[in-house]
Amino acid sequence: MQKGEPGNIVDCLRIFSGSSHPELASEIADYLGCPLCSRATQRFSNDNLFVQLGESVRGKEVVMIQSFSPDVSDNIIELLMMLDAARSASAKTIHAVIPYFSYGRSDKKDQPRISIAGRLMADLIQTAGASHVMTMSLHSPQVHGFFSVPADHLSAHAVFTRHFRSKDLSNSVVLAPDIGHAKRAAKLARALGIGVAAGDKERLSDDTVRVAGIIGDIAEKDVIIFDDEIATGGSVMAIVDLLRKQGVKNVTLACTHGVFSGPAIERLRNIPELREIVTTNTVPIPPEKRLPHMTILSVAPIFGEAIRRNLMGQSVGSLFAFWPDSDESGLPE
Amino acid sequence: MQKGEPGNIVDCLRIFSGSSHPELASEIADYLGCPLCSRATQRFSNDNLFVQLGESVRGKEVVMIQSFSPDVSDNIIELLMMLDAARSASAKTIHAVIPYFSYGRSDKKDQPRISIAGRLMADLIQTAGASHVMTMSLHSPQVHGFFSVPADHLSAHAVFTRHFRSKDLSNSVVLAPDIGHAKRAAKLARALGIGVAAGDKERLSDDTVRVAGIIGDIAEKDVIIFDDEIATGGSVMAIVDLLRKQGVKNVTLACTHGVFSGPAIERLRNIPELREIVTTNTVPIPPEKRLPHMTILSVAPIFGEAIRRNLMGQSVGSLFAFWPDSDESGLPE
Amino acid sequence: MQKGEPGNIVDCLRIFSGSSHPELASEIADYLGCPLCSRATQRFSNDNLFVQLGESVRGKEVVMIQSFSPDVSDNIIELLMMLDAARSASAKTIHAVIPYFSYGRSDKKDQPRISIAGRLMADLIQTAGASHVMTMSLHSPQVHGFFSVPADHLSAHAVFTRHFRSKDLSNSVVLAPDIGHAKRAAKLARALGIGVAAGDKERLSDDTVRVAGIIGDIAEKDVIIFDDEIATGGSVMAIVDLLRKQGVKNVTLACTHGVFSGPAIERLRNIPELREIVTTNTVPIPPEKRLPHMTILSVAPIFGEAIRRNLMGQSVGSLFAFWPDSDESGLPE
Amino acid sequence: MQKGEPGNIVDCLRIFSGSSHPELASEIADYLGCPLCSRATQRFSNDNLFVQLGESVRGKEVVMIQSFSPDVSDNIIELLMMLDAARSASAKTIHAVIPYFSYGRSDKKDQPRISIAGRLMADLIQTAGASHVMTMSLHSPQVHGFFSVPADHLSAHAVFTRHFRSKDLSNSVVLAPDIGHAKRAAKLARALGIGVAAGDKERLSDDTVRVAGIIGDIAEKDVIIFDDEIATGGSVMAIVDLLRKQGVKNVTLACTHGVFSGPAIERLRNIPELREIVTTNTVPIPPEKRLPHMTILSVAPIFGEAIRRNLMGQSVGSLFAFWPDSDESGLPE
Amino acid sequence: MQKGEPGNIVDCLRIFSGSSHPELASEIADYLGCPLCSRATQRFSNDNLFVQLGESVRGKEVVMIQSFSPDVSDNIIELLMMLDAARSASAKTIHAVIPYFSYGRSDKKDQPRISIAGRLMADLIQTAGASHVMTMSLHSPQVHGFFSVPADHLSAHAVFTRHFRSKDLSNSVVLAPDIGHAKRAAKLARALGIGVAAGDKERLSDDTVRVAGIIGDIAEKDVIIFDDEIATGGSVMAIVDLLRKQGVKNVTLACTHGVFSGPAIERLRNIPELREIVTTNTVPIPPEKRLPHMTILSVAPIFGEAIRRNLMGQSVGSLFAFWPDSDESGLPE
Amino acid sequence: MQKGEPGNIVDCLRIFSGSSHPELASEIADYLGCPLCSRATQRFSNDNLFVQLGESVRGKEVVMIQSFSPDVSDNIIELLMMLDAARSASAKTIHAVIPYFSYGRSDKKDQPRISIAGRLMADLIQTAGASHVMTMSLHSPQVHGFFSVPADHLSAHAVFTRHFRSKDLSNSVVLAPDIGHAKRAAKLARALGIGVAAGDKERLSDDTVRVAGIIGDIAEKDVIIFDDEIATGGSVMAIVDLLRKQGVKNVTLACTHGVFSGPAIERLRNIPELREIVTTNTVPIPPEKRLPHMTILSVAPIFGEAIRRNLMGQSVGSLFAFWPDSDESGLPE
Repeated sequence: MQKGEPGNIVDCLRIFSGSSHPELASEIADYLGCPLCSRATQRFSNDNLFVQLGESVRGKEVVMIQSFSPDVSDNIIELLMMLDAARSASAKTIHAVIPYFSYGRSDKKDQPRISIAGRLMADLIQTAGASHVMTMSLHSPQVHGFFSVPADHLSAHAVFTRHFRSKDLSNSVVLAPDIGHAKRAAKLARALGIGVAAGDKERLSDDTVRVAGIIGDIAEKDVIIFDDEIATGGSVMAIVDLLRKQGVKNVTLACTHGVFSGPAIERLRNIPELREIVTTNTVPIPPEKRLPHMTILSVAPIFGEAIRRNLMGQSVGSLFAFWPDSDESGLPE
Repeated sequence: MQKGEPGNIVDCLRIFSGSSHPELASEIADYLGCPLCSRATQRFSNDNLFVQLGESVRGKEVVMIQSFSPDVSDNIIELLMMLDAARSASAKTIHAVIPYFSYGRSDKKDQPRISIAGRLMADLIQTAGASHVMTMSLHSPQVHGFFSVPADHLSAHAVFTRHFRSKDLSNSVVLAPDIGHAKRAAKLARALGIGVAAGDKERLSDDTVRVAGIIGDIAEKDVIIFDDEIATGGSVMAIVDLLRKQGVKNVTLACTHGVFSGPAIERLRNIPELREIVTTNTVPIPPEKRLPHMTILSVAPIFGEAIRRNLMGQSVGSLFAFWPDSDESGLPE
Repeated sequence: MQKGEPGNIVDCLRIFSGSSHPELASEIADYLGCPLCSRATQRFSNDNLFVQLGESVRGKEVVMIQSFSPDVSDNIIELLMMLDAARSASAKTIHAVIPYFSYGRSDKKDQPRISIAGRLMADLIQTAGASHVMTMSLHSPQVHGFFSVPADHLSAHAVFTRHFRSKDLSNSVVLAPDIGHAKRAAKLARALGIGVAAGDKERLSDDTVRVAGIIGDIAEKDVIIFDDEIATGGSVMAIVDLLRKQGVKNVTLACTHGVFSGPAIERLRNIPELREIVTTNTVPIPPEKRLPHMTILSVAPIFGEAIRRNLMGQSVGSLFAFWPDSDESGLPE
Repeated sequence: MQKGEPGNIVDCLRIFSGSSHPELASEIADYLGCPLCSRATQRFSNDNLFVQLGESVRGKEVVMIQSFSPDVSDNIIELLMMLDAARSASAKTIHAVIPYFSYGRSDKKDQPRISIAGRLMADLIQTAGASHVMTMSLHSPQVHGFFSVPADHLSAHAVFTRHFRSKDLSNSVVLAPDIGHAKRAAKLARALGIGVAAGDKERLSDDTVRVAGIIGDIAEKDVIIFDDEIATGGSVMAIVDLLRKQGVKNVTLACTHGVFSGPAIERLRNIPELREIVTTNTVPIPPEKRLPHMTILSVAPIFGEAIRRNLMGQSVGSLFAFWPDSDESGLPE
Repeated sequence: MQKGEPGNIVDCLRIFSGSSHPELASEIADYLGCPLCSRATQRFSNDNLFVQLGESVRGKEVVMIQSFSPDVSDNIIELLMMLDAARSASAKTIHAVIPYFSYGRSDKKDQPRISIAGRLMADLIQTAGASHVMTMSLHSPQVHGFFSVPADHLSAHAVFTRHFRSKDLSNSVVLAPDIGHAKRAAKLARALGIGVAAGDKERLSDDTVRVAGIIGDIAEKDVIIFDDEIATGGSVMAIVDLLRKQGVKNVTLACTHGVFSGPAIERLRNIPELREIVTTNTVPIPPEKRLPHMTILSVAPIFGEAIRRNLMGQSVGSLFAFWPDSDESGLPE
Repeated sequence: MQKGEPGNIVDCLRIFSGSSHPELASEIADYLGCPLCSRATQRFSNDNLFVQLGESVRGKEVVMIQSFSPDVSDNIIELLMMLDAARSASAKTIHAVIPYFSYGRSDKKDQPRISIAGRLMADLIQTAGASHVMTMSLHSPQVHGFFSVPADHLSAHAVFTRHFRSKDLSNSVVLAPDIGHAKRAAKLARALGIGVAAGDKERLSDDTVRVAGIIGDIAEKDVIIFDDEIATGGSVMAIVDLLRKQGVKNVTLACTHGVFSGPAIERLRNIPELREIVTTNTVPIPPEKRLPHMTILSVAPIFGEAIRRNLMGQSVGSLFAFWPDSDESGLPE
């Protein structure tokens, strides 16, 4: 099977993009050789949203692509309305593709009387009509279990390993900023054949973290900080401070979800040790946020291939042949 | 039973306000003689919302007050998280009080492949954990049937009749802008003992309407335009143009939900025939929107009394004794 | 694709008729070129109903056609048992086709402690196993939102416009008996290029209405009274009385659902001004009720075509080419 | 606690009767010392039913009493609307009391493509809002498992044993007409200290049965035929024919649910061997059906006591002290 | 269609066997000409089970075969995990094939405060993801109604009639051990053209029964005891004692589900009158339990054919042509 | 309020213990001053379980205590039947208390086509009738989000801090065996004012782990290994090997759930460096597994107090006053 020639699945497939990230949706549609269907969203004068699907979905496999990037609430409501519109228009199956599921971070009840909002959002998506979910690099792998409908939890692991294998890693180590979420970094380190370390991070508030220390040996190493998501960059700043004290002079920053909100870009611009920022396009990154040393890897082929295999009834777990220069598939995380 | 002395229901009651309209929530809590509980909402750096209830709700009757005023999407998501937090914290019963349910306007499928979003939102509210809903003056009375949990559909009718009875109505007529939603205006006209007329309105777009004509006799009358909601005021402008051509010189504008978005206030300020604007506080109206001839009637006693009767296991349908200077209760619509 | 030649959908399609209206079911089956399957209904000696489907439905698209005409309760229970039988016999999809959904009239809670029975019936239909509903001219368009399964709300608009366009309408006006349900009449009037008026109707009891007046100019006009449903004809009598006083001498009566119960036929027979009664076959009209000046338009092609498009995965919203001598499709209302 | 003085449960209890059997409902209400609430049912001119509860049920324990006697479909729809009305009016708990659950007979799939309607009806009752069901002498005890909400399956065993113990049973035997449902008769026989026999019945159609023979010794005995339900009396006729051939001259007929439809009364009147007909009031028996040798035992105390114990949080399974002259309670079957 | 050549259904079919009865699963797979997929089950050191399906099921019709033979709890949990794994791996349809549904015996509430566990297990199977159930000879036919998903209740009747027709039955009678479950025996007797009798069994405990007597004439007959299930053989022992007293010298024992637990085999070995034990392979019977006069009939063709017809969308109720030497199909019971 | 005198909650409370851990259930009941209700469990001869509750639960708050210790499958099925029995016997609320939720370990999909069994078990518990869950120290905090009913996730943190504060910790460090689950250890370390380290563990199979190294400084320290659960002790052995190489001579082992299966006890007995094993009684530990240096801390007061607060409608999150010699409550984790 050749990329771009998915055959007759195009007849039964209708792909729609929400407002959050039409570029990624286009790339995915291109991969599948299937045009994006039009979708019109208006904001009424009372601030209600209104969504209309531009093509009949009766009896079709419908793919709705929406990233939970800012404005998150609007994007969620828009997705829910798209799902509901497709269901009530008699779609056969409705796949919600959520490259960045922001509420995956709300995955536990670490304070009393809060919502485990990751579970809540998963329930809302089901209520609105999704029959299947595809998402990537959830904040913790357990969030997968929040979905009541079948869900494919894809991984950006393959795009990162492919990227870093072309580099000189002889003096490198992978650093997980938070010891509580170090598995993903450890997996990357193993795939690259290098060591791993972790920060003993304590979150004081949403934007303030204290890193008590680094567990593992990073002195004078080239450090690849690897995290699932970077928002304001507060954690990165705290980590880099510590690294600096231990003589680290060469830092690479890698993250799946490059949210880069608030002061993030300014902060990153001003870290002299920072040689490269590697991220993916699960979240749209506007031109003004694209720093010169930023590399944006595309996850569209992973989503596209996973959609294709879903429709063809092929295994999503065995993508070896598909990605020949990688020894690991992008699926499943 | 005296107003403001609801007795021991306070022990089992916990009232929380969402971010949309704390003033109304305070008024309702005052009516019930029960303090508002604290609630903290943050916006994370990735634009996720975070909500924490400030008091234990275990085994309590919990009231969550949130109006779907702008920013509607944020306010809906916040309410859903408040409901979920209360449920997972073992509240006994959760009452969602939604004075303005904006999505009631999305009540039918008048175009293909859209969501009947009023039903969708009702389903989401149930999914998130509400066991009971209280709302007011839904765009159409059928929206009541969208809720799967028991719902009390309250009416602002009593506050308007009380207001207008103190006026000289000898030359007045009530005008419904849209012949398709004229029942509420006809009821008001009957209660005031005056005539009713209706506009033959056709909506060209969200903000543009054409009024083909007025059905009924309004020539040289004092006209009370009565609608459930005013957003940009586009319909009002179109109606007033027609009225002007028929010699009408004295117009009063009355609506339950005073959204007054976009150019609304400027438009209303510049209608010379407009003598008074009467609305309620289901939606917050900031000081800069309060025109000199605007009267804001409070619906807090109606919601407060309905909550009280709910908790006491008393009929909500028989509020006669409660509102002595009105021959009609505020409940049910 | 030619009308009457739906091709291979016949292989996967099984159409059953309930007891209420086998003639319409036959017409729909004929349209689809697919024979009606047999269905046996018995009444046990304890008054229980018993229903058996006469053909295997395993893995098939099953269509169950039942109008909620009298005896309504028996017809509802029979439909629910047909749906359940098909589900438990492993049907692939179950389409409940309900040409006349009588309980659509119970669409709001205008008195305390009643059931919004339109919503209740929609829920029962889902519980019994329907995966899709098709119905026509619901009492209010909001009733569409009562269905939890996808529903196609079809319209008889096209059959009425086609019928009236062959008439001389130069002195005609369309009159909606109830100002609260005037949208459908206004749409017909616009399609016919004539004016619209509305009665200010107040319902005193099920069979007694008071029409306070007519809003709009109908003096000496030919009046086409247009309503969704006529039962005992009480509203019609009250309207005609008023019309007579205003000198109207020529009345046409048009309604989608011709229930004509109790004294209806006698009443209609004795209105001298009544030139024509135009209705459809959503409800069976026995020979003894067929007055000489009654025209019964068939909605079978609309239902047939909508079923065909459903099975073919084609848009139901774009039926333009299908009905060439009409500028408006029968779908969706 | 004295019979008839249930104390303060009256405050929280609201009992409504459907149209099927107001006499039994009154007796149950009397037992509980609690007045029946009013309930208004109308039939609209389109044959829709309309039900309104006459008293507020907000926060109350609501009991809805409806027997599935003819007209069964109307009675079911009326009950479902009563349940829905109570739920949407914020009742605390809703108990559906169904003394005769006629569809319990539809308890298996003995032909292809039929509905197991007993399960369907149980599901509909839950959908409409019942939170608890009370019923009596289901056709088979397994039907109990069809209910998804908690259900109390009461027994009329105690009223029959009490009745028969006052008789001379020295030459008597209990005969179950159908070997497939002989457990209940065997239990009665054991309680009375007499033998049991069973007919080898084969049902040819709803009203025609063939009894191939009698299993067990009944020659020259006084035979008490005991069944759960008698409708047209067809089985009884067939059995008596066989008994007659074996010299039986004295027959008593006992059944819990005396439906007595169609030719039943005439048939029973004309059996010379029939000395007594013993039944209960789970189904209303109008005066014209009351034969001279018919004894109607009341089950109102059993339902009343079970309701009282439910509300008081007392065991329904241990009613020993309650019915002192019986060694077995009426609960549970 | 030839046995063993089911054609292209193999492409869309994936059959998995649980740990309970791989031999039967293999036979069924052979019948369908489709290989069994691998499935790995481990027991973790904390006694948790872990199940992994060995092949992709995305978009496939998945068949999970598991008998509820000992260890029943482990087998149920393993099946539930297999169903859940298939659902979350995006199977199209999931058929739970349960040849012996042991909890069908828990079908009523004959004691207070117990679970009707047959219904509970049916609900758990639905929760875990089954979309369809196939089972055989449920303890009572009403248990069919416990399943919320479509269920095919197959019968072993055909394999027994075929077996016994080759015997000399001139002096034989079929005996149902329990008068309360005599329908199945009566049906077998009719098919074989011989008489039927029943035991008046009373269960004193799980392993102790008292048979008060035999209803029907069995003196000096050859008796075929026919039951749905034999566990410890306690009922058989009690019956044989009674038979012996009535001069019976020739006994055949037939049962669908040969559980043969505890002392069963020893007991059966020591009944001199016992000429043959006929059972099926719904439950695995290890070599050490295979007595010389035991005949094990295979139900694999019945399950295989029913699966095939399900997938082909053919009637399961009309299997006449399939089993030419029997006048009754194995479907449905 | 004094410990052991919970007052009138006893009237409405019924506590039952499953078969897994009656000792803990007794301790909890003692804490609450409320006797354990009897519960009878039998194993039928076909290996089905049978459960009967020994006391009426009608209208009561029911607590069901069952630990998922071996035999896990039997214990789960027994709990599900207990929940179902209580629900169908009209319990008011049903609290499932699961001190050790073994399937919390199955919290992610780290291999294709497996079940996230933690979520599955949570769903089964809800299906069977639990309205509330209480559990302790879930393998990962995200598992909390798997429960659809409200759940209290309690912590054994307080009992461990209280225990260790009485020790000399001047040379101690807390070691988390797995860097992916180090948060709980870090919290303990902070509470004790000492350092934290973590193993870079890789699980090769259920019982074989490779620890690549220790991240953090533990040389010559007294090491407190802290994990949520110890089964065969394989991880401990691997860690201790590494520690030994780094000169560690003094090891304490602490875990919440002391499963100690298979070779665990023998392995632990033979580690010379092991000075103390500290665990809790969430899982029963039989006398033969109680090593001389094993300390078993009771969690009964934590569960007891949490139950009491639940019933009293008091905050479970603020247990400060309750446990005076600890600065942290046991609730919530």
